[in-house]
Amino acid sequence: MGCVQSFREMCDRTKNTNVRLSLPAVCFVWQTAMIILFGVFVRYNKESDPHWIEERKINNISSDIENDFYFRYPSFQDVHVMIFVGFGFLMTFLKRYSFGAVGFNFLIAAFGLQWALLMQGWFHSLDDDGKIRIGIENLINADFCVAGCLIAYGAVLGKVSPVQLMVLTLFGITLFAVEEYIIIDLIHARDAGGSMVIHTFGAYYGLAISWMLYRPNLEQSSRLQVSVYHSDVFAMIGTLFLWMFWPSFNSAIADHGDGQHRAAINTYLSLASTVLTTVAISSLVQKHGKLDMVHIQNSTLAGGVAVGTAAEFMLMPYGSLIVGFCCGIISTLGYIYLSPFMEKYLKIQDTCGIHNLHAIPGVIGGIVGAITAAAASASVYGKEGLRNTFDFEGDFESTVPSRQGGLQAAALCVAICFGVGGGIIVGCILRLPIWRDPADDNCFDDESYWELPDDEESEPPVLHYNNHMLNQEIAQSNFNMDQK
Amino acid sequence: MGCVQSFREMCDRTKNTNVRLSLPAVCFVWQTAMIILFGVFVRYNKESDPHWIEERKINNISSDIENDFYFRYPSFQDVHVMIFVGFGFLMTFLKRYSFGAVGFNFLIAAFGLQWALLMQGWFHSLDDDGKIRIGIENLINADFCVAGCLIAYGAVLGKVSPVQLMVLTLFGITLFAVEEYIIIDLIHARDAGGSMVIHTFGAYYGLAISWMLYRPNLEQSSRLQVSVYHSDVFAMIGTLFLWMFWPSFNSAIADHGDGQHRAAINTYLSLASTVLTTVAISSLVQKHGKLDMVHIQNSTLAGGVAVGTAAEFMLMPYGSLIVGFCCGIISTLGYIYLSPFMEKYLKIQDTCGIHNLHAIPGVIGGIVGAITAAAASASVYGKEGLRNTFDFEGDFESTVPSRQGGLQAAALCVAICFGVGGGIIVGCILRLPIWRDPADDNCFDDESYWELPDDEESEPPVLHYNNHMLNQEIAQSNFNMDQK
Amino acid sequence: MGCVQSFREMCDRTKNTNVRLSLPAVCFVWQTAMIILFGVFVRYNKESDPHWIEERKINNISSDIENDFYFRYPSFQDVHVMIFVGFGFLMTFLKRYSFGAVGFNFLIAAFGLQWALLMQGWFHSLDDDGKIRIGIENLINADFCVAGCLIAYGAVLGKVSPVQLMVLTLFGITLFAVEEYIIIDLIHARDAGGSMVIHTFGAYYGLAISWMLYRPNLEQSSRLQVSVYHSDVFAMIGTLFLWMFWPSFNSAIADHGDGQHRAAINTYLSLASTVLTTVAISSLVQKHGKLDMVHIQNSTLAGGVAVGTAAEFMLMPYGSLIVGFCCGIISTLGYIYLSPFMEKYLKIQDTCGIHNLHAIPGVIGGIVGAITAAAASASVYGKEGLRNTFDFEGDFESTVPSRQGGLQAAALCVAICFGVGGGIIVGCILRLPIWRDPADDNCFDDESYWELPDDEESEPPVLHYNNHMLNQEIAQSNFNMDQK
Repeated sequence: MGCVQSFREMCDRTKNTNVRLSLPAVCFVWQTAMIILFGVFVRYNKESDPHWIEERKINNISSDIENDFYFRYPSFQDVHVMIFVGFGFLMTFLKRYSFGAVGFNFLIAAFGLQWALLMQGWFHSLDDDGKIRIGIENLINADFCVAGCLIAYGAVLGKVSPVQLMVLTLFGITLFAVEEYIIIDLIHARDAGGSMVIHTFGAYYGLAISWMLYRPNLEQSSRLQVSVYHSDVFAMIGTLFLWMFWPSFNSAIADHGDGQHRAAINTYLSLASTVLTTVAISSLVQKHGKLDMVHIQNSTLAGGVAVGTAAEFMLMPYGSLIVGFCCGIISTLGYIYLSPFMEKYLKIQDTCGIHNLHAIPGVIGGIVGAITAAAASASVYGKEGLRNTFDFEGDFESTVPSRQGGLQAAALCVAICFGVGGGIIVGCILRLPIWRDPADDNCFDDESYWELPDDEESEPPVLHYNNHMLNQEIAQSNFNMDQK
Repeated sequence: MGCVQSFREMCDRTKNTNVRLSLPAVCFVWQTAMIILFGVFVRYNKESDPHWIEERKINNISSDIENDFYFRYPSFQDVHVMIFVGFGFLMTFLKRYSFGAVGFNFLIAAFGLQWALLMQGWFHSLDDDGKIRIGIENLINADFCVAGCLIAYGAVLGKVSPVQLMVLTLFGITLFAVEEYIIIDLIHARDAGGSMVIHTFGAYYGLAISWMLYRPNLEQSSRLQVSVYHSDVFAMIGTLFLWMFWPSFNSAIADHGDGQHRAAINTYLSLASTVLTTVAISSLVQKHGKLDMVHIQNSTLAGGVAVGTAAEFMLMPYGSLIVGFCCGIISTLGYIYLSPFMEKYLKIQDTCGIHNLHAIPGVIGGIVGAITAAAASASVYGKEGLRNTFDFEGDFESTVPSRQGGLQAAALCVAICFGVGGGIIVGCILRLPIWRDPADDNCFDDESYWELPDDEESEPPVLHYNNHMLNQEIAQSNFNMDQK
Repeated sequence: MGCVQSFREMCDRTKNTNVRLSLPAVCFVWQTAMIILFGVFVRYNKESDPHWIEERKINNISSDIENDFYFRYPSFQDVHVMIFVGFGFLMTFLKRYSFGAVGFNFLIAAFGLQWALLMQGWFHSLDDDGKIRIGIENLINADFCVAGCLIAYGAVLGKVSPVQLMVLTLFGITLFAVEEYIIIDLIHARDAGGSMVIHTFGAYYGLAISWMLYRPNLEQSSRLQVSVYHSDVFAMIGTLFLWMFWPSFNSAIADHGDGQHRAAINTYLSLASTVLTTVAISSLVQKHGKLDMVHIQNSTLAGGVAVGTAAEFMLMPYGSLIVGFCCGIISTLGYIYLSPFMEKYLKIQDTCGIHNLHAIPGVIGGIVGAITAAAASASVYGKEGLRNTFDFEGDFESTVPSRQGGLQAAALCVAICFGVGGGIIVGCILRLPIWRDPADDNCFDDESYWELPDDEESEPPVLHYNNHMLNQEIAQSNFNMDQK
């Protein structure tokens, strides 16, 4: 701990937020690298290649509608909305950081999805000829991968520079792809909605980075770490699009047919249940029973995170409701009691409270998934259904549900370790005094990185001028008096 | 009437808006009840069960894409957006009730859809073994059912407590399910887009409740019953998402194939036509021809309501345009002349003007549906098409179009009766002095139920301080003078 | 030029923005005309007609899911969102023109799509019996056609009356349909995403109109031609919905199967790349490296415009990235250097900078399409794939790729000519002194055409009052002094 502290101090210098060289350099160089790597590696897959028409005849596919595009494109677009509008607007709640919330979310997601296509492609979609073949499922997975980094952004919102965010994303995507490969391919865990792979990993990654970037004097920016009325309404746009489209998120890469169908139903129910318990706890702990927008904006989503892994399993409708019920309570209590505790004693400053929205529900989701998998049986799933749902094929033909439960639990540990470990390392890098992050009294302020409009509404200059004139008149009247 | 008045007076006491016990209690108890009832009753249907793969083979279904999920999921998500973002943001137009509009809409919709799955399930999806089998169509129907209650919320927006809203929803869903069973199953009327079942019922239910909750001194809150510039822009988000996705609403549960296709086209055209006549009337009746945002936000949607019943019939493209044309005019005139009249003489205070947006267009929709059904013929629909579209099968094999027209008209009457009757009874219950609703001078104010941010923008404290200082300086200068 | 100038001066009179007669008249008469024309001409096509069930049997179509509705409806809804929320909110960035941006966008799109269904129907969907048969693809094409006019609206935003916008739309749709017929049917160019047909035409049409309507004294409204903090956040809603759904826009009417699939992938990649270079240039040219919201809101979309034509071709993933890379740079530089130049020297006042967002990227898109088409070969596309993708059938069976490249280039010229020529003629008409457009010092102000709410937030009357009182007190104190 001592060495961490001294490393932190070593890195703190006078801050300068001018990113005029570093940001364009990072964007240009990395985007050029993407073009070169895509040129070398990325091609269309069978279903998006003009040879598809011949492919159809060879494989006796009766209609164009059986192209995977038509199974997944609607879900893909919903996920896309969650990534850009959902995450982006959810973070606009701060009174003067809406540009940074939406804008930097946009920037890092746009970079991240390219890098994710490559990283995930190398692990999952590499063809015999060394090419990555992409189709609609790759686009969804790239969006998923980006989600992990956007969750991490929630922890450091307002305290880092866009260059740091790009670095956070570069390493985050890389770690994600490795972690996902271990969990899905090596351990052979199932995680359709990414409770472990996306949420648990992303949240601990962000929290570890935030811990490394701890700012002891952050209260100097406390005047800006609040919302205003309309910024809270903007944030509700993000909340609602995340909430509504979460069934698509959890079902987007589930098995065709009943798999996608069931995942959507489970998520729909879990989220509905979460809303009620979130409202209940929010009202119960406040003086006068008034609701707190922070809880409504965030904790209502916990149920979606927590059914991610088990969404395509036979969780049963009431099981989904129970998961949502518990998560609404735990997440809201987390915002009330745990976040202040973590900031004070663990030195983790978590701007958006991702620990309550992603970390805890993600871990719950992993555990629920392990239990549901271990409890699976051929009588409930049917023999073919069981093999189908858990993919007991090839090397894993002999896996039994109880063993699958163990594998799911192992996967959860991998996700946590990758998140915490990766976050500490990347946090070290981000602490270097070269990234142009804002000073402690300048956090949560768009002024640092954005040209802001003159906003009459917030600072009426006319009135200052009037007061100034009044002061002069008073001085004048005093002067007049003195002369007499 | 006299007794209604005295009952009203009996119930008015000093108001207290502290819902710290009642709101959490209602949320916890009802959500727990949902879990128990779902545990006893609700299971996945064939298409969302892992046995689907065996089912496919037995029924010789060639591809997973023929799962109902792929026919309806895109429409479902659009309907979902209408319920949560559409209705929620449409009601954010008040300057200080945006949290309540979006937040309580969120709460009651999340509760309502669970209760709707049960109520509708008992009536429509009960299997031989006493279980409700749910799939994507049930989720859509649950959202539809919720829409009825959200419409009713529009009439009482800003004047009730969240606990009252929960009660309104509980009874609303129950009444809806019974009414729907009578209309669809017993009367065998068709109502794909719910002009009668959803809009007419929901609107009269809300208006009757609002009549029972009449507040003679509501003008004490008139300073808050207005919009500000940005709240009107937020409301346009709701308007547009409702307007754009209405074709999905009216086609979501229509027949596969041409039924859904035709319903979408008819709704698209009707809505387009409504926009033009709304703008025309809005400009015509104002001084200087200026447009009124209230009309643009609301009346532009009337065309979607009014083609709900007939959307899947052979209304013809020009028929849809005519319906939209008329509804734009009638709805806008309703906002200008009818709403003030109803408030003054009928003692119905209708915050969002649902009478003009849902009640009248809903009734028109029912009539249009009856006429279109009565005019149907095998020459226009084809023999199979006629049977398909009107579901002339089983007990109703011998029904002829003219008789179907009569059934549609009967269904409209049922919807109105259930709305008015149910609303009066529920209104009585909501008038009891136990619900913690706001006082007359405290309506339309989020302050009652929400922790609000300190909004510098609306009340600049710095300037007050400056003025205070100036006053002191003036006093000082006067003092100086006096001393001389 | 001299005569243009004198014509302009002739038309400038004292301005009056009262549209109380003209706007309702235009709306009523044109909507009535639509109803009559739809009654005479428009019918459902095979797939939306109740005879579809018989059609299916005749053509041996195995399932309802092969109805074109299920191939295109999700894309249609995404395009619909782009038209109404995307374009509408993108233009809300001005501090006091959000009502006009969203509201007039709504009005002209609702009118335009009806007129487009007719115009495009006459050219493309006319049946043997003289009827236009419409289905989901017609709705998408109507939305596309409207997009051209909404782009043009961007150039004249805030400077014209709603009546002028209706006229702009009427002629714009008409010109569009003719231009599209020449490009698609006569020249037989391919343009799935409309780089040429929609964007190039729409942008030059708008710019030519703006040139004709040049206002030398527009700086009198410069106080209103700025954004405020929240109006910029509203505009980001438009940006993001356009950005996210652009893959649907470019793939909506592409070929079933691999065509739609590939178009979505190419657009997704190109847009991602554009974001990074936009951010890079925006930061590079500003003092202190601060980002400018104007660039983030607009230039990030240029990549979607520029892959429109080539989206369904074998542009390859890296090709898409390169196109996006270049367009982000060019578009952002356009906002910084070209727009001021055009306003000063070419007398083109382009409120939203459509020249940088639609015109230049549209032309690039046309060129990229021509090159990609000319480079096509059977080895890359497969023999059937080549015929399929470029539609080398019927009269065009013998077309070779190199010739197709020439045709694409010819199509681009047609689009530019129609845009510029049509815009000059329509601009002449719109300059007539009868349209009730705002005076130079009254542009960009919703006050002209909208009933505005009293917005305490922007003009705090209390404080003025306080200052007034203070002045009185000062006067009093001076008076007291004088008396002594």
